[in-house]
Amino acid sequence: MSKQVAVILSGCGVQDGSEIYETTLTLLRLDQLGIGYRCFAPDIDQHHVVDHRTGEPVAGETRNVLVESARLARGEVSPLDALEADEFDAVILPGGFGAAKNLSNYAQAGADMVIQEQLVEAVSAFHEDRKPIGLMCIAPVMVPRLLGPGIAVTIGHDPGVAGAISSMGGLHRSCGVEDIVVDFEHRVVTTPAYMMATRLGEAANGIFKLVDRIDELMDL
Amino acid sequence: MSKQVAVILSGCGVQDGSEIYETTLTLLRLDQLGIGYRCFAPDIDQHHVVDHRTGEPVAGETRNVLVESARLARGEVSPLDALEADEFDAVILPGGFGAAKNLSNYAQAGADMVIQEQLVEAVSAFHEDRKPIGLMCIAPVMVPRLLGPGIAVTIGHDPGVAGAISSMGGLHRSCGVEDIVVDFEHRVVTTPAYMMATRLGEAANGIFKLVDRIDELMDL
Repeated sequence: MSKQVAVILSGCGVQDGSEIYETTLTLLRLDQLGIGYRCFAPDIDQHHVVDHRTGEPVAGETRNVLVESARLARGEVSPLDALEADEFDAVILPGGFGAAKNLSNYAQAGADMVIQEQLVEAVSAFHEDRKPIGLMCIAPVMVPRLLGPGIAVTIGHDPGVAGAISSMGGLHRSCGVEDIVVDFEHRVVTTPAYMMATRLGEAANGIFKLVDRIDELMDL
Repeated sequence: MSKQVAVILSGCGVQDGSEIYETTLTLLRLDQLGIGYRCFAPDIDQHHVVDHRTGEPVAGETRNVLVESARLARGEVSPLDALEADEFDAVILPGGFGAAKNLSNYAQAGADMVIQEQLVEAVSAFHEDRKPIGLMCIAPVMVPRLLGPGIAVTIGHDPGVAGAISSMGGLHRSCGVEDIVVDFEHRVVTTPAYMMATRLGEAANGIFKLVDRIDELMDL
């Protein structure tokens, strides 16, 4: 029986959902390592819909996070409240603003953010079982509120986001785009990905390292 | 000055646009090889919008191909009618049903299909200049109508699509998911990708081979 990893999505598109390349590269690396995966997303409306060409929100349009995440998962996505940690060996959250707009409200509330209750429930169960947790791009900003204080993470170098992490009791470590930060004690692995990447190959190198480390941690 | 490749998209999502993984893997390999790229898509309405969770069309919803393609290109996408072959060394078309619903009407009309005029104009200019052309998944079904008869392509093994290619004057070659078909005379490279892939790693191997061969052909 191969290892199984849950991947939690937040829509489809960097501005209002999951970052598409980060998600694809995560799934690619899992598959290359012979690790099975299943995608999950909350069955809620997106915070908003952004026209990715102009960067502007589209007035009056509504999209559902689970339905849009299905684009990114070729239809194979389950509601987040159906995620059972018992069935998986690790969990990974790609980035994209969906992590800060749909899975939490960090984009609006900063360090006062609230995290979707079903995400807290799902990920806490992995943490309590000491199963490895990977997060990339902006998603690590959720860690202090999601898993508790004193856990080392990176979002790259951005001082605003790093400051928010510190003010919530998290530990921020600066990190290059092609590298990862590993908190061995708490079994949390993070990489900056498109918080910093200017090229797809850079993001890929960091993400592949993150998945490789998650793979190793599943054996420990 | 590095080589430059144009990538033509048809939306964002396998059922009504560009296949997301095929596009991401194409761009990843181009970047890994140090090849520059720019994405293009027609500024037209999608044929329809499909709920990728259920597979059913959504009544009354309209999305624009260029705007949705911007999700897949992180905002960096230009209208297809602005594509100048002079500025590029090759062109690649990922698959997804958008190729058969938005770039052409193969999904509705079969071998009687018509191809978007701006796609014909854009790609014909590459063909006349003997610049390499890559197509994957269902996109190769357009080749006889897009570039003319007698060009060898693959969509894998599907007898219906292969028959349509033959009936339009094309030459279909059966091919495994991790392999490519190269028509050296016409400088056309094709791979089955998600016409056959059951795993992301399989699709990646075929797509990486396609991009590598396009890279070689640009030197010849």
